[in-house]
Amino acid sequence: MMEIKFIERKDLKEKPDMSTVKFGSQFTDYMLTASYDEANGWHDWRIEPYGPIQIAPTAVVLHYAQTVFEGLKAYSVDGEAVLFRPDQNFARLNRSLERMSMAKIDEVEALTALKELLKIEKDWIPTGEGQSLYIRPFVFGDDHTLGVHPSDTYKFMILLSPVGGLFSAGTMGTTKIYVEDKFVRAVRGGVGEAKTGGNYAASMKAQEVAEGLGYDQVLWLDGVEQKYLEEVGAMNIFFVKDGELYTPELNGSILPGVTRMSIIEFAKDAGYKVHEARIPLTDLEAGLKDGSVTEVFGAGTAAVVAPVGELNIHGNKYVVGDGNVGPVAQEIYTTLTGIQNGKVEDKFNWIVKVDE
Amino acid sequence: MMEIKFIERKDLKEKPDMSTVKFGSQFTDYMLTASYDEANGWHDWRIEPYGPIQIAPTAVVLHYAQTVFEGLKAYSVDGEAVLFRPDQNFARLNRSLERMSMAKIDEVEALTALKELLKIEKDWIPTGEGQSLYIRPFVFGDDHTLGVHPSDTYKFMILLSPVGGLFSAGTMGTTKIYVEDKFVRAVRGGVGEAKTGGNYAASMKAQEVAEGLGYDQVLWLDGVEQKYLEEVGAMNIFFVKDGELYTPELNGSILPGVTRMSIIEFAKDAGYKVHEARIPLTDLEAGLKDGSVTEVFGAGTAAVVAPVGELNIHGNKYVVGDGNVGPVAQEIYTTLTGIQNGKVEDKFNWIVKVDE
Ligand SMILES: Cc1ncc(COP(=O)(O)O)c(C=O)c1O
Ligand SMILES: Cc1ncc(COP(=O)(O)O)c(C=O)c1O
Repeated sequence: MMEIKFIERKDLKEKPDMSTVKFGSQFTDYMLTASYDEANGWHDWRIEPYGPIQIAPTAVVLHYAQTVFEGLKAYSVDGEAVLFRPDQNFARLNRSLERMSMAKIDEVEALTALKELLKIEKDWIPTGEGQSLYIRPFVFGDDHTLGVHPSDTYKFMILLSPVGGLFSAGTMGTTKIYVEDKFVRAVRGGVGEAKTGGNYAASMKAQEVAEGLGYDQVLWLDGVEQKYLEEVGAMNIFFVKDGELYTPELNGSILPGVTRMSIIEFAKDAGYKVHEARIPLTDLEAGLKDGSVTEVFGAGTAAVVAPVGELNIHGNKYVVGDGNVGPVAQEIYTTLTGIQNGKVEDKFNWIVKVDE
Repeated sequence: MMEIKFIERKDLKEKPDMSTVKFGSQFTDYMLTASYDEANGWHDWRIEPYGPIQIAPTAVVLHYAQTVFEGLKAYSVDGEAVLFRPDQNFARLNRSLERMSMAKIDEVEALTALKELLKIEKDWIPTGEGQSLYIRPFVFGDDHTLGVHPSDTYKFMILLSPVGGLFSAGTMGTTKIYVEDKFVRAVRGGVGEAKTGGNYAASMKAQEVAEGLGYDQVLWLDGVEQKYLEEVGAMNIFFVKDGELYTPELNGSILPGVTRMSIIEFAKDAGYKVHEARIPLTDLEAGLKDGSVTEVFGAGTAAVVAPVGELNIHGNKYVVGDGNVGPVAQEIYTTLTGIQNGKVEDKFNWIVKVDE
């Protein structure tokens, strides 16, 4: 196992009010860094004071966007730090790295490094209802030439950022979604299934336009025919039709969400019929019209479940169900957050303790 | 006009052997930087010693690839520094910035800044046959939060890098191209026409596979049907059929090349019929089979013109013409490089002098 150098800082930061802290705006006292080159592999692992980094102005990431990231959370359960399926995030990190022709990381080493960092930063994990410590692992190419080719050197970093509860239990809000039929995020044969920066840069204009129209997020359609459901902003999408669950299949252009996967496993176990399929937008629209679609919700690490109250499809506005949080979304939310908070039995073995 | 602060360095670097220097590997003594925020607009313009920069580990470019770049060249003509159509590059920079929801730059200020930098770095412009000073302007988001949204702050930089002649006159080589029918670079509704990092990150895997098969570059097809010609690596594509020129039309998913545009203007003026169209790969393949297609060449700032000697289409290998440089490619190359080097009259007014 690798050695991790700990560079201690003199003064620790004051911790923010965890109930009001804005996503991704505050960071803990330390960050993890490691470097890669062909001769040494991943080396020079450090836990060092959080702060600016030095980078060559020619770094591949600055010019050609060779970068991938992950997002997961640590929760505090009875004073103990736990993680939700971190192995899935590091496995996906490696799939993204592979797709982007970047150096892969030993998944056990990456998880070990994260645990070491969390042991030091334990006091930063908020303990309030729905609160957690967001974890951002990322890797980027920092090579020193301008040729368009994969970098020879990489940097791996982990940042930690406390997040207040998005919803307190029983008061989940609903979100308004705009179905995007002009801009395209990803296409088969592209990099849509990789968690790589370019996918997010490519989504900003559409997000801006949707916000201008009063919507929270964009629902993307497939890049080829612009007819099939893909995913929402930083979430996968589900709907409930005649009591059964539907979600787009993994087709290469959507991100295989850890939340999506967990919902499918839980729902099947709970007796729901779950359809992973190529789903025409027209099927969803018909179900909204005739009332057979009773719930639509997004699924991702940030909100776990984000019920959709209104959908705009080609200018037609549909209220989903009665516009409030539906029972299936509520059940999934309660169970998944319950498992994360230690209030519901972890029968799927999803929880990993930091101190073990 | 803005003020540019000059931060002088003590020792200048030794200049490399310009005839052997590798593209993008050596940089001059200085670089230009400027910063953007909403309150101050673009400000803090500096010409400072070339070297590493400081960046927040949360910078939007590192996570969500909000970055665009440009590429152009300075040439030395009788001891005077000249640029080729820099206004086109800065206009394209702003179109890319717009597409990526980034802060735009005053094109006159950007060109002024570049000229100031070049006046200081004049001695770095190589004077040999086919040699030039490559110019890399780029802009990236360096904001300090992890939310997926456009950055509030940006950095603009210009780096300079001497390049040896790719070909000396009359000895242009030919390149081997692999027509990519699995991976996709861009799709209509996406960001293909923006010179943004994600497009290049998305191309690396295919480029790696093609190189593994013995090819120099990939010819991309459209993302929707994978049937129509798009562009090559970092070049637009042309072919000559029955003495007439063909190139894919600007459709939103290919980069509007300055070289492409210049070739079209020159060729029309020289009496060629030029077709900008949606071109099925099958048309090109049929022309290669029956001999009506006599030349294929890439067009871009790096090589100006890169004649294609061999094309691999779905596993079938086609030698183009007699496999050597054809007369049309040669005429275009001689004229465009002649205008750049001051050996051919600049009848289109493409040359901009740095000292004026
Ligand atoms: C594009 C996209 N889709 C879906 C998701 C949901 O994935 P996960 O459940 O792993 O958070 C994310 C990320 O968080 C995302 O960025
Ligand atoms: C994708 C792509 N296509 C085409 C070109 C050619 O453009 P230009 O002639 O402006 O160099 C480039 C860049 O250089 C490019 O990166």
